[in-house]
Amino acid sequence: MSELIVIKIGGGEGIKPDAALGEIAGLVRAGVRVVLVHGGSHETNILSEKLGRPPTFITSPSGHTSRRTDRETLKIFEMAYCGKVNKGIVETLRRAGVDAVGLSGIDAGLWTGKRKSAIRSVDADGRTVVIRDDLSGRVERVDDRFLRLLLDDGRTPVLTPPAMSDEGVAMNVDADRAAAATAAALGADELLLLSNVPGVLRDPEDRSSLIETVSSLDEVRRAAKGRMKNKVLGAEEALSGGVGRVVIGSASGASPVADARSGCGTVFEGAIA
Amino acid sequence: MSELIVIKIGGGEGIKPDAALGEIAGLVRAGVRVVLVHGGSHETNILSEKLGRPPTFITSPSGHTSRRTDRETLKIFEMAYCGKVNKGIVETLRRAGVDAVGLSGIDAGLWTGKRKSAIRSVDADGRTVVIRDDLSGRVERVDDRFLRLLLDDGRTPVLTPPAMSDEGVAMNVDADRAAAATAAALGADELLLLSNVPGVLRDPEDRSSLIETVSSLDEVRRAAKGRMKNKVLGAEEALSGGVGRVVIGSASGASPVADARSGCGTVFEGAIA
Repeated sequence: MSELIVIKIGGGEGIKPDAALGEIAGLVRAGVRVVLVHGGSHETNILSEKLGRPPTFITSPSGHTSRRTDRETLKIFEMAYCGKVNKGIVETLRRAGVDAVGLSGIDAGLWTGKRKSAIRSVDADGRTVVIRDDLSGRVERVDDRFLRLLLDDGRTPVLTPPAMSDEGVAMNVDADRAAAATAAALGADELLLLSNVPGVLRDPEDRSSLIETVSSLDEVRRAAKGRMKNKVLGAEEALSGGVGRVVIGSASGASPVADARSGCGTVFEGAIA
Repeated sequence: MSELIVIKIGGGEGIKPDAALGEIAGLVRAGVRVVLVHGGSHETNILSEKLGRPPTFITSPSGHTSRRTDRETLKIFEMAYCGKVNKGIVETLRRAGVDAVGLSGIDAGLWTGKRKSAIRSVDADGRTVVIRDDLSGRVERVDDRFLRLLLDDGRTPVLTPPAMSDEGVAMNVDADRAAAATAAALGADELLLLSNVPGVLRDPEDRSSLIETVSSLDEVRRAAKGRMKNKVLGAEEALSGGVGRVVIGSASGASPVADARSGCGTVFEGAIA
């Protein structure tokens, strides 16, 4: 069976996916099977502002941040992620000769899981409040059979949140962990999580403090702050799910995919304690 | 082989697809294969207004109207059609037990064709101007093999514009004619074009002037005004492409799909001169 790679390209500010998309076209031409997962947070922020509903974020007591997603926000989220970003990427990939198929996690029941019925959020004054109507959750199951149907037919899936809750409601999910769940379900050889940081930094302010090879999960867990926490969790989930190698790396530069594959970034490989 | 129906639900003002979606769930449960095509023009108008880019329309010398689609409009179009409307329909269908897969015409190269390199537009003063940078065109080819792959796997495709031009650029296409091309490519038993009018009217102001059974194409061609012209063209293209029966009917009421199937609307069937 040919090599299978799951590549996640973040949707944060300043990330331009074009170089990575060109590389993905090259990989597909060379016979590598690729599943691309992307975010869209910056486009969602812009659209939310333009529509007069500035984004708000939830910070959990343990320091995870996530978008506050009520029903109206979810519609804006779908417009940005599934409309603007997904179709833009599909158009670019197809023009580069890739038989791309853009899907959200709700299509074909690709990504399903539990919605969070109560989210603890720490407000600006340090008080903890409980939010019960947030449309967010976590991917627990991946319809890998459908993805294999597409891959076996020579197609390249381009996947994006939302996912579907067990009650049949679209929900916001973390795209890094969704990519990790996808890589695990497919038994991918490699998972690349590319964004606007070079990897896990010992000091988030110092890009030279990159952890290059993960020898201790405790160390990366301690180092990871904010959104990086989800990437590290995703990396752990992918590894324990059977993925051979995970790299958290940068989406920037002329060859971000090749760079990550050659080990630029934070590399998780093999048995890590 | 089980029955195959292509159903197009318009995206015009006042159209609520929920009743039709409930019926489609019933048909799929009963073993009928359904391909759903939908529009999104009203949502695109609303989003365009909110984003400070009010929609503009082109009227051809022969009276066809179409959305003026520059690059920025196409992104708004994709957010409304592929984001908000498509994912909303997929969510509703999945909750009703349908294994829906939402796709645009650019995904998997489903809908391809020629972009119009020059569009003649009649302006308010009756002058004809030529527009060369519009991103619009017509579906000439349908990847019916991919649609069959989905249908054979028990999935229900939910399709929406844009389509892909031969040069690899996303373009606005008429969803009625795209549905007709899809029905023809699949050799569908039936094509239903449901919108906010009861069918082809002899007098557009008089809803009782409905042409019920088409015995002469000349008569419906003469009667069809504005957007109805595309529905009639689509009906003709579907029939000449081998579709057994086409009904142009209303998307309103408690059972619009059953109503159209039972002949409420304008029915095109068999050999028509």
